[in-house]
Amino acid sequence: MSILDGIHSPEDVKKLDMAQLDELCAELRREITDGVLRTGGHLASSLGAVEIIVALHRVFSTPKDKIVFDVGHQAYAHKLLTGRRERFDTLRRFGGLSGFPDPAESEHDAFRAGHASTSVSAALGMARARTLKGEDGNVVALLGDGALTGGLAYEALTDAGQSRERLIVILNDNEMSIAHNVGGVEQMLGRLRLRPGYMRAKDKFRAATSRGRIGHTLYRFVHGVKQFLKSLIIRSNIFEDMGFTYLGPVDGHDVKNLCRLLELSKSYDGPVLIHAITVKGRGYGPAENDPEKYHSVAPAGSAKPGMSFSRAFGDALVELAREDGRICAITAAMESGTGLEKFAREFPERFFDVGIAEEHAMTMAAGLSAAGMKPVFAVYSTFAQRSYDELLHDVALQNLPVVIAVDRAGLVGEDGATHHGIFDPGFLAQAPGVRIYCPANAAETREYLRLALSCGEPCAIRYPRGGDDGRFIGVSKGAAEVIRSGSDVTLAAYGHMLSNAIDAAGILEKRGVSAEIVKLNTLSPLDAETVFASARRTGRLVIAEDCTAAGSAGQRLAAEAACAGEKFGIRLVNLGDRFCTHGPTAELEKYYGIDAESIAEVALWQK
Amino acid sequence: MSILDGIHSPEDVKKLDMAQLDELCAELRREITDGVLRTGGHLASSLGAVEIIVALHRVFSTPKDKIVFDVGHQAYAHKLLTGRRERFDTLRRFGGLSGFPDPAESEHDAFRAGHASTSVSAALGMARARTLKGEDGNVVALLGDGALTGGLAYEALTDAGQSRERLIVILNDNEMSIAHNVGGVEQMLGRLRLRPGYMRAKDKFRAATSRGRIGHTLYRFVHGVKQFLKSLIIRSNIFEDMGFTYLGPVDGHDVKNLCRLLELSKSYDGPVLIHAITVKGRGYGPAENDPEKYHSVAPAGSAKPGMSFSRAFGDALVELAREDGRICAITAAMESGTGLEKFAREFPERFFDVGIAEEHAMTMAAGLSAAGMKPVFAVYSTFAQRSYDELLHDVALQNLPVVIAVDRAGLVGEDGATHHGIFDPGFLAQAPGVRIYCPANAAETREYLRLALSCGEPCAIRYPRGGDDGRFIGVSKGAAEVIRSGSDVTLAAYGHMLSNAIDAAGILEKRGVSAEIVKLNTLSPLDAETVFASARRTGRLVIAEDCTAAGSAGQRLAAEAACAGEKFGIRLVNLGDRFCTHGPTAELEKYYGIDAESIAEVALWQK
Repeated sequence: MSILDGIHSPEDVKKLDMAQLDELCAELRREITDGVLRTGGHLASSLGAVEIIVALHRVFSTPKDKIVFDVGHQAYAHKLLTGRRERFDTLRRFGGLSGFPDPAESEHDAFRAGHASTSVSAALGMARARTLKGEDGNVVALLGDGALTGGLAYEALTDAGQSRERLIVILNDNEMSIAHNVGGVEQMLGRLRLRPGYMRAKDKFRAATSRGRIGHTLYRFVHGVKQFLKSLIIRSNIFEDMGFTYLGPVDGHDVKNLCRLLELSKSYDGPVLIHAITVKGRGYGPAENDPEKYHSVAPAGSAKPGMSFSRAFGDALVELAREDGRICAITAAMESGTGLEKFAREFPERFFDVGIAEEHAMTMAAGLSAAGMKPVFAVYSTFAQRSYDELLHDVALQNLPVVIAVDRAGLVGEDGATHHGIFDPGFLAQAPGVRIYCPANAAETREYLRLALSCGEPCAIRYPRGGDDGRFIGVSKGAAEVIRSGSDVTLAAYGHMLSNAIDAAGILEKRGVSAEIVKLNTLSPLDAETVFASARRTGRLVIAEDCTAAGSAGQRLAAEAACAGEKFGIRLVNLGDRFCTHGPTAELEKYYGIDAESIAEVALWQK
Repeated sequence: MSILDGIHSPEDVKKLDMAQLDELCAELRREITDGVLRTGGHLASSLGAVEIIVALHRVFSTPKDKIVFDVGHQAYAHKLLTGRRERFDTLRRFGGLSGFPDPAESEHDAFRAGHASTSVSAALGMARARTLKGEDGNVVALLGDGALTGGLAYEALTDAGQSRERLIVILNDNEMSIAHNVGGVEQMLGRLRLRPGYMRAKDKFRAATSRGRIGHTLYRFVHGVKQFLKSLIIRSNIFEDMGFTYLGPVDGHDVKNLCRLLELSKSYDGPVLIHAITVKGRGYGPAENDPEKYHSVAPAGSAKPGMSFSRAFGDALVELAREDGRICAITAAMESGTGLEKFAREFPERFFDVGIAEEHAMTMAAGLSAAGMKPVFAVYSTFAQRSYDELLHDVALQNLPVVIAVDRAGLVGEDGATHHGIFDPGFLAQAPGVRIYCPANAAETREYLRLALSCGEPCAIRYPRGGDDGRFIGVSKGAAEVIRSGSDVTLAAYGHMLSNAIDAAGILEKRGVSAEIVKLNTLSPLDAETVFASARRTGRLVIAEDCTAAGSAGQRLAAEAACAGEKFGIRLVNLGDRFCTHGPTAELEKYYGIDAESIAEVALWQK
């Protein structure tokens, strides 16, 4: 029997000998690797955080103590230790475990995560609540160095630093975010990594004096003197400047030392930051050697996708950039995911990876544009939510020709609720004067990118995760176009959903119903006239989208029809006003009623 | 003739003797004070930045060189020096000068501003564009210490630091943001302010060696040695850690020294940060003594508003907090503006001013809520745009009972395009499960706040700038209610626009048209049935709002009517999909067609 077989809850971790912890870590690592290579998931981050998580459950008692994960990529060991081992093979599957922490899944998950840089804010809120309620639990935020480039983390750290709240922040520093860390944060951390000697001395002194009243007073006094001396002789660091007690750097794979440090950190009165150095992919050779490749792993046996939209976009951008030296590309730590690798190689001077900093990426793009360049900010739809204000205030208000390439629009599948790109048709359309292209295949992605870069206005191009399925070939012109003639019902759709509409038309045909399809090429402006002209002929209009209802193109078109007194019937197919769970996209489409069958069903409504 | 009389463009500043600069500053200060006390505007910030702006125009040549203002409160001296003195008395008036920088107004305004913390991002983009184009202009970002608490500024500084771009950031440190600076930033700056001696020596050395090739090489060599020594003997600071050359602190009112420093900073190859200490309100006694009061000044002779919504909200929150120890209040540097002063005094331990950090405020609120508290985040509508993702990802997704008090919703008047709260009905409604209350008077503000705090779900309460005008008395129940009976047309409205609808009904009555008014109390959920039931009787429905069209409640209702096959006619009154200019709110309402007269006009449409 393995050690892991005996772990049914975090309390069991506390019963082990110290000596068994290393073996437990090794077992967790094997379990994670085997599982994720089968189910798919975020491998490298989770492998890097195994010792930290074991140490956390050794020292703290969830759910009384709170562990707040940042992003949550690294939480698999935590799932295995908190009663979810038996369901681990359902990871990221429809109805199965989430790939991220989720309080609805386990009381040991203190806060939901998925987007970066939220953990310190959430943990600080919990710590303040604890103090206000006169309780005595511990709150720990676990964040990676990538998350530290996000402004939200900085806002939280500065607030936490001055708050004097009892709060432990563990910085899991694997010297890279998803790709590699960028910017000043990397420089700052780089310097810190070089001073283990200083840490040891300080740590020992604190350990000796921080317990008990006399020790505490002694520490306080000596600490004051030391601070003064240190201000003369030792480099300070950003965390101490903010008001944190800084412990580190320490080896993030030395579980015993981590336990010791966490115990120590409990005894501090104010906020503590433990700087742990880890290796992403630790213990699995391929992932250690290529952590970016193993950041996210596809399930075993999954089909190789065809030409992805990201790739089509990236290739097209390189071609256009060869002809126009003003074209720049910007990514927020998603060079590979957004298809910009080739661009980065060929035009390094025009390529800007700003780290996990979507707000800055958008406003920096506005600055580039204001000075005559043609910036393209490639970003996942869900992360573009972070730059909503900057889109309005810095791009749209000044009508600056920035192009936002909105990747992973629509349902993204296994990453689930935190990652679906189901709000962008609403929030992009809110930005006055921003043209929104929605290509349905690789050829259109290329062509609409070209149009976006030449129109001299702010533009967004939204396209889905994965590849062009070949259902629609060619490039549609104008804002909307009838691509299939029919007499009984009009189906309007765009982007990925065009395929579902085409399939729905096939289903309807078998049932003797002739469907006309209007393909929307831009969501803003909306070509209501083309849609309505078709619907007036057929008498009924179904608008199908892979986004939530509020602010959808369907709502906007239906409202316009109502105000114009149009007489045709209208039905909207969309995800409704809700978040959507994880699972294969096809399964989710069926579940939420936006697949071809559902569209056909809606189209047959009885007047 | 004053010196200012001879200044028609920034070039004229360069023709003055050094000795005349102080007098110019004094004249500017008088001009600004006299003007702003007449027109209203942001006085204290603008007075504090006079010398910095004069020095900038002395040393740099706009528009070739770019000066990017952060927020833009401090830009009045800049406006006076760049050919806008004669129009200065139109400041913030309809059709007059904007209270903020605006490239559409002058080629000397490099970038539009209004929201905080954008300047370094925009300036970095411009600097990168300059370098890519092989040009040689200078780019300067001028930001206040308040803006430094925003995560966007941090994201930009870290990116700029590592970029090695030639870029000058001037930190105008008046030791307060709008109220007072908070958090770790203040601690960091506090320490920096204490070391003028060090700066002088470094500055002189650099000045002596930075010109010319040999000087440069010498500087480089000695700089290397010095860096090493400094790492042993001198405290570093966050800006140097990020990669900036740090110059400061310097007296931000010593115009000659500022000129010298700016000249010096031009000669650096990489990013430079000049830390200037200034006094907010400088030179105008009342503003120096109470800079928060004189942050924003109302025009002379403007009527005292009645009980403002902010005040009604703040008072109600204090009352509720007396009975419920779980209620907390959060502000992002807007304690006074959002009516939270009384709460802060009475419940300091439950009051959190996180600085200009709306993202963190929202996620921290989620953390408080997850741990059982009842947080209320009071924020201006326009700044709530900054926390769009956090509202979705951290509050709504977990269905956490956070209350967002959305102040300054709708048109805000003189602050103009960057400050109108005209997007929130759309973006708040996008958040699944977030209930949106829209009180129309002080009594409703109190009552809906009470409901929001007791319903156990995430809620927003949106209310306008200024006071309750007494047009609607009492508290309406449910999601919507008929508050005036009529037979010819249904007017649906909410919040501030209810007054316009009531006045429109009066106008219509005089024309022999009987209007029924449906008051919407929540925007989410929308009580379509009550609205439609009325419209079925009257045959026509007008929905009037003070927001943009995309995602408006009107669009959502009209779409629902279309899908339900309702036969009544529908018209939407809203601001359309555009940004709105500055001026008195009443004038803007008329201009954009959402005043009572316009609503009445629309209601008379010919079928």
